[in-house]
Amino acid sequence: MDPALGALGEFGLIDLIRGRVRAHSPGTVRGIGDDAAVLGVGSAPVLATLDMLLEDVHFQRAWGRPRELGRKTLAVNLSDIAAMGGEPLFALLGLGVPTEEIRLAELEAFLAGLEEEAAASGVTLVGGDTCRSRSGLVLSLALLGRALPPGPVLRSGARPGDSLYVTGNLGAAAAGLLALERGIRPGNAWPDVLLRPAWLGGPEEAVVREAMEHHLAPVPRLAAGRALAGVASAMIDVSDGVASDAGHLCRESGLAALIFAARIPIHPGASVMGRLLGQDPLALALSGGEDYELLFTAATDPAPALAAAVPGLAVSRIGEMQAGAPSVRLLGTDGTVAPLRPGFDHFRGGP
Amino acid sequence: MDPALGALGEFGLIDLIRGRVRAHSPGTVRGIGDDAAVLGVGSAPVLATLDMLLEDVHFQRAWGRPRELGRKTLAVNLSDIAAMGGEPLFALLGLGVPTEEIRLAELEAFLAGLEEEAAASGVTLVGGDTCRSRSGLVLSLALLGRALPPGPVLRSGARPGDSLYVTGNLGAAAAGLLALERGIRPGNAWPDVLLRPAWLGGPEEAVVREAMEHHLAPVPRLAAGRALAGVASAMIDVSDGVASDAGHLCRESGLAALIFAARIPIHPGASVMGRLLGQDPLALALSGGEDYELLFTAATDPAPALAAAVPGLAVSRIGEMQAGAPSVRLLGTDGTVAPLRPGFDHFRGGP
Repeated sequence: MDPALGALGEFGLIDLIRGRVRAHSPGTVRGIGDDAAVLGVGSAPVLATLDMLLEDVHFQRAWGRPRELGRKTLAVNLSDIAAMGGEPLFALLGLGVPTEEIRLAELEAFLAGLEEEAAASGVTLVGGDTCRSRSGLVLSLALLGRALPPGPVLRSGARPGDSLYVTGNLGAAAAGLLALERGIRPGNAWPDVLLRPAWLGGPEEAVVREAMEHHLAPVPRLAAGRALAGVASAMIDVSDGVASDAGHLCRESGLAALIFAARIPIHPGASVMGRLLGQDPLALALSGGEDYELLFTAATDPAPALAAAVPGLAVSRIGEMQAGAPSVRLLGTDGTVAPLRPGFDHFRGGP
Repeated sequence: MDPALGALGEFGLIDLIRGRVRAHSPGTVRGIGDDAAVLGVGSAPVLATLDMLLEDVHFQRAWGRPRELGRKTLAVNLSDIAAMGGEPLFALLGLGVPTEEIRLAELEAFLAGLEEEAAASGVTLVGGDTCRSRSGLVLSLALLGRALPPGPVLRSGARPGDSLYVTGNLGAAAAGLLALERGIRPGNAWPDVLLRPAWLGGPEEAVVREAMEHHLAPVPRLAAGRALAGVASAMIDVSDGVASDAGHLCRESGLAALIFAARIPIHPGASVMGRLLGQDPLALALSGGEDYELLFTAATDPAPALAAAVPGLAVSRIGEMQAGAPSVRLLGTDGTVAPLRPGFDHFRGGP
């Protein structure tokens, strides 16, 4: 065990966390230091979500970016609140520490990243649980927020004839993950001449590195989500991949979706990694997951509201909702229509 | 992988959970099936807590009691809400599934136990996260509730001269854990003649079996906590052991505590296991942890309020709060006073 971590002990770590956490949201009556946090949320509906990140499943500690991991632990939950058009307020952190493997400095960097993301999003860490883990770093975060008028945007509100939109572009996280898995590291030189064909120049490398950053520290679309609260009829964040997540919208709304392959905004990093590894960039964009963009339906053009709230954020009309049994089909660039298979299933593996 | 689990897949498991969950609390606007749950809590302060249970750290799956594990996953969080004198309402479950090791039937029994405890406590499971785990069953549960008048009971409210009380008795969970670790199993015959001295008869065996049940499925003191909301000046649940948990009360209240060894209500199972293994039953009771009784301070006798709310629940005056730097000391049966060392520290082991 890192002597610094051993000297600190569990309750020392809690004190360390408590000493570094600042209030970034109103309403904390009682934060870290009691059996439960006491929170003033007012009378608006409370939004609540919980996500887990497990070492060797969701991330590799060997990638060596604990600060980004701290950011991401909160960001993936912020993305859920964004997809409701809500305002995040309070977080509870579950931290299972592999005491025999981890250094205190790594934990401190993780906590600094978490606090950084909390400050950026107006969230206060108000409690949680720490324990020893025998099997890697275990991260669990519950996030509470509140719905904003005109009310939370559910997955179930889509209507036949609504268009299907997505913010930003897709496939960056999947491409970034492929790059990381092949030993490409942020900040390090491109590792292997075998992975460096003649066509892969500086601009191609730059977009792959951007994709890696997107995987390591995704940017939750909070402002976009709020701006869309009065426009979107249904909304979800892209965590499992558009193919799966559009399926969720369809099931909850009782509709079918037709997605236009030609309209998918493929991240340039996905195009590069696809070419490099002989994979279809469109498949990376549709099934890769973890992009944390917003996928939503609307009857009117959302671009003006989005442009006003988040200047420069792209939004693409990628399909439409149709009456019919829940299903997601893809209209290919060749004019054929085929069922779109889902993305990542944690139990079955990958797309 | 269990073929039944493989056939179900991750989203099938979520559908299975969703199909079995019932609403046991008012206010669920939107439960499982969206990016975040939407909850009506009213304008009372929200109570929020999160606990984790990790395989091989908090429990052994080999003990073969998944239903009790489901109950406990919620119960340890209910205990936190009880210690605030509050009302539990909504739970979010994080479930990391060791897909290569676990059978679907075991997961179903776990979920049945969780739902059983939810029904008993008026809690609705409204969301969470499922994923694959490469390293054992990972359980994380966040529980939301609300404070009841006259307001939440904090750890910080003790005053000099208050008495220190505990509900029920202590050491049962520690004794039960010792029994489980030595191969004694609920429902099975006592395993080893070496562990069966002549003095250990039917009554002794019965109290050890009771202690095992207490470890496997602790009973949160919700009704007692509510009854104490108008009586207790400070309160905490006994999760780390009285020695540690009294220390938390002292630190948050800025007081010292003197605990009377002669007044500690030792569970008879702790006396038996202590005698069997040559350990001090008082140490098991003070440092063992996981009893999930309520430890609280009060200026007036809490027995009438408790007797009215929870007939038959014992309450013991085990010490007093004194002005002075935060510390916990033990007045021994021989009249000596010595610092009481803390109980379990997840990073250091213990007690």
